[in-house]
Amino acid sequence: MALALSLGRRGLGQCWPNPAVGCIIVNKGRIVGRGWTQPGGRPHAETVALAMAGALAHGATAYVTLEPCAHHGLTPPCSDALIAAGIARVVAPMEDSDARVAGQGFKALKAAGISVVTGCLVERAQQDHAGFFLRCEQGRPLVTLKLASSFDGRIATATGESQWITGPAARRVVHGLRACHDAVMVGAGTARADDPSLTVRDIGVHRQPVRVVVSRHLDLPLLGNLARTAKEVPVWICHGESADADRIRAWEGLGARLLPCAVNGMQLDPVDVVHKLGQSGLTRVFCEGGGALAASLLAADLVDELVGFTAGRLIGAEGLPCVGALGVDRLASAPRFDLVEMRPVGNDIAHRWRRSYLRQT
Amino acid sequence: MALALSLGRRGLGQCWPNPAVGCIIVNKGRIVGRGWTQPGGRPHAETVALAMAGALAHGATAYVTLEPCAHHGLTPPCSDALIAAGIARVVAPMEDSDARVAGQGFKALKAAGISVVTGCLVERAQQDHAGFFLRCEQGRPLVTLKLASSFDGRIATATGESQWITGPAARRVVHGLRACHDAVMVGAGTARADDPSLTVRDIGVHRQPVRVVVSRHLDLPLLGNLARTAKEVPVWICHGESADADRIRAWEGLGARLLPCAVNGMQLDPVDVVHKLGQSGLTRVFCEGGGALAASLLAADLVDELVGFTAGRLIGAEGLPCVGALGVDRLASAPRFDLVEMRPVGNDIAHRWRRSYLRQT
Repeated sequence: MALALSLGRRGLGQCWPNPAVGCIIVNKGRIVGRGWTQPGGRPHAETVALAMAGALAHGATAYVTLEPCAHHGLTPPCSDALIAAGIARVVAPMEDSDARVAGQGFKALKAAGISVVTGCLVERAQQDHAGFFLRCEQGRPLVTLKLASSFDGRIATATGESQWITGPAARRVVHGLRACHDAVMVGAGTARADDPSLTVRDIGVHRQPVRVVVSRHLDLPLLGNLARTAKEVPVWICHGESADADRIRAWEGLGARLLPCAVNGMQLDPVDVVHKLGQSGLTRVFCEGGGALAASLLAADLVDELVGFTAGRLIGAEGLPCVGALGVDRLASAPRFDLVEMRPVGNDIAHRWRRSYLRQT
Repeated sequence: MALALSLGRRGLGQCWPNPAVGCIIVNKGRIVGRGWTQPGGRPHAETVALAMAGALAHGATAYVTLEPCAHHGLTPPCSDALIAAGIARVVAPMEDSDARVAGQGFKALKAAGISVVTGCLVERAQQDHAGFFLRCEQGRPLVTLKLASSFDGRIATATGESQWITGPAARRVVHGLRACHDAVMVGAGTARADDPSLTVRDIGVHRQPVRVVVSRHLDLPLLGNLARTAKEVPVWICHGESADADRIRAWEGLGARLLPCAVNGMQLDPVDVVHKLGQSGLTRVFCEGGGALAASLLAADLVDELVGFTAGRLIGAEGLPCVGALGVDRLASAPRFDLVEMRPVGNDIAHRWRRSYLRQT
C-alpha cells in the first residue's frame, strides 16, 4: 500500500478534479501491474495497472489507494474493470467521499465475490487525498500557504527589494511544490510588485498548474508575464463586482478566465474565493502570498498546510511583513499549526506544518 | 581530543574570565586523568587531570584543548605542572591568544623535552573558545542572539501578550543556553514588559549567569524580579550618562553593578556596551532581546551566533517584531548568517546560525 500511495502521489497536481490514485496488482507475491491516475485525470490508476497485468490479474490482489469508482463518468467504472479482470482481493485504505462512489464501489466488488480489505495506511491516504476530500465534502480545495521570509519574517526591504531572500535551492523546492498542486495563487500586490510568471521551471514538468490571481479591482498589469502567457498556461482571476468592465474584457481577450467573487468589507471574501476555485475543479491550491492574501486566508481559517522557508538574513522592522494584519489580540486566538517536518535546504531552512487540531478559536 | 573538548565545554558559562578548557591524560592507551576548568575558572583543567592521574602521568600524553598557561596568575603555570608530572607529550589544537601565554606555554614544554603536537580539531576548539578569544583579541565577549518568535517573526501580540509563543520544551532549551553563557542580557523594554528573572531554572545549575540589562535612562522597575534578587544573582546595568542619580544610588543599594556606557544618537552605543562587558570579564553573552536591542546589536555587526525558535502560531503584522528597525535598504547589506544546525523542539523548531563570512557590508 505504501508503494501504491507513492505511485498515486505522482499524480498530485496533474489530475484534478479527479483524485490522484495509485494501484499495484500483486499475483503470488509478484508485482504484475502498477499505475496511477494519468495527467488530466484519465485513465484511472486501476485501468493502467490492469492493462499492465493482463491475464496475470486473474486471482491477484489489487492495492488501490482509494475506493474504486462505481459510476459511469467519462470512463467506465473501475470496479467493473477489476471484476472483469478476475481480481480476487482488493485492499484499499477507505471509502471515497465522492457522493457518486461512497461505498458503491466496494459494494459492487463484494457482490462479485471479491474480498475487500480496508483500513490500511488510512492516515497517509487521507493526507494524499486531502484536497480531493475537501472539495467533495466542503466544496473547497486544500490550501497550502508558502511563506518564504527573512529570519525575522520579512518578504522585502522597505524599498521593495525581495529577490532573493532565500537561496536557489529553496526556490527549486518551491517549483517542486508548485508542481504537486493544481494551482498557484498570489494576491494582486505580489502580481504587480514581482511580475511573476508562476510556472514550474527546470524540473521537467509538462502540465503546468493554473495561475490564480486574487485582485478585487482587477488592477493588474496588462503587459506583464501573466498577461503575455495567459493563452499558454491558464490564468484565472478572482475579482470583485467593482472591477472595470474594460479590464474584464481585456483579460478575457488575453485568454484569462474570470471568476467574480463576493466582497467582504474592503477585500474579496476568502471563503467565496476558495469555493469558486473548488467549483472550478481545483483540489489543491498553493498560495505564495503576499502578506495581505496570506493574512486573509489565515484569518478565515482556510490554510490547511503551511510551508516556511527561512533565510539567515535579517531585514528589520521596516521591511514588508510576510503576513499582514490578522486582528489577533490574544495568543489563544492566533492561528496555530503543528510541525510535520523540517530540513535544511541550501543555507535556508524549510519547515512544513499542518492545521492544528488543538486550535482554540 | 574530541573527548577533551566535550569535557571543556562543561565549563562554558561557569569559568569566565578564564577559558573553558578540557584535559585528558592517556597512559599506554588508558585514560588515567580527566579534568575541565572548574567553576570560577580555577583550578585549571590540567591541574584537575594531573591530580587524578597521579604517578600515572609519568610518560603519558596530555590532550589539552588550549595551550597550557605559562604565567603566574592566581594559579601556578600549568606548563610547569605538566613538566613536573613527567608528561611526555602534549597534544593541543592551537596557541592561546591571551598575550600572557601566546606560545610561551608550548615553548616551556618543548624546552623541558616534551613533544608538542598542535593542529588537532582546531575549528571545533576555536568555536568552543570563541568567546575567550574575542575578549583577548577584540576586547568584547561573544554575543549569541536568541530570537523566539511566532512563525511570522513576532514576539508579542498588539496588546503585549507574549507568554507563551513557544512551548515548554523550547523554553527549557533556552535555560540550557543561558547556563552555557557567562551572562544573559535584555533591553530595558523587555525588562519592563516581562519583569523576567533571567535565571537558569530546573536544570540543576548552581552558578547562575550574570543578568545584564541595557537601559540608557535606567528607567527600570525598582520592585521587580531583578531588583528583588540582585543581591543573590548579579545584576549589571549598562546605562547612559543621562541616568538619574537617585536611580543609580537605588540600584547600587539593591546590589546591582552599574556600567556607564557611551551614547550614540538616541541609544546606548552597542559597541561600547559589549566592550564594557568584556572589560568586566564576560566572554559569552546571551542576548534575549527585545527587538530594539536585537536590532542595535545586529546593525553594529556584533552578533556572532543567532539562535532561533520558531512556533507554529501566526500573530500578524500588528504584533511586535522580533527585530526592530535595522536601516537596511538593500538585501545585499542585510545582516547574514550561515545555518549551523536545526532540530524540532516540542512543536517548535530550533535553528542555530553563525556570522556569515560571505557578508557584504
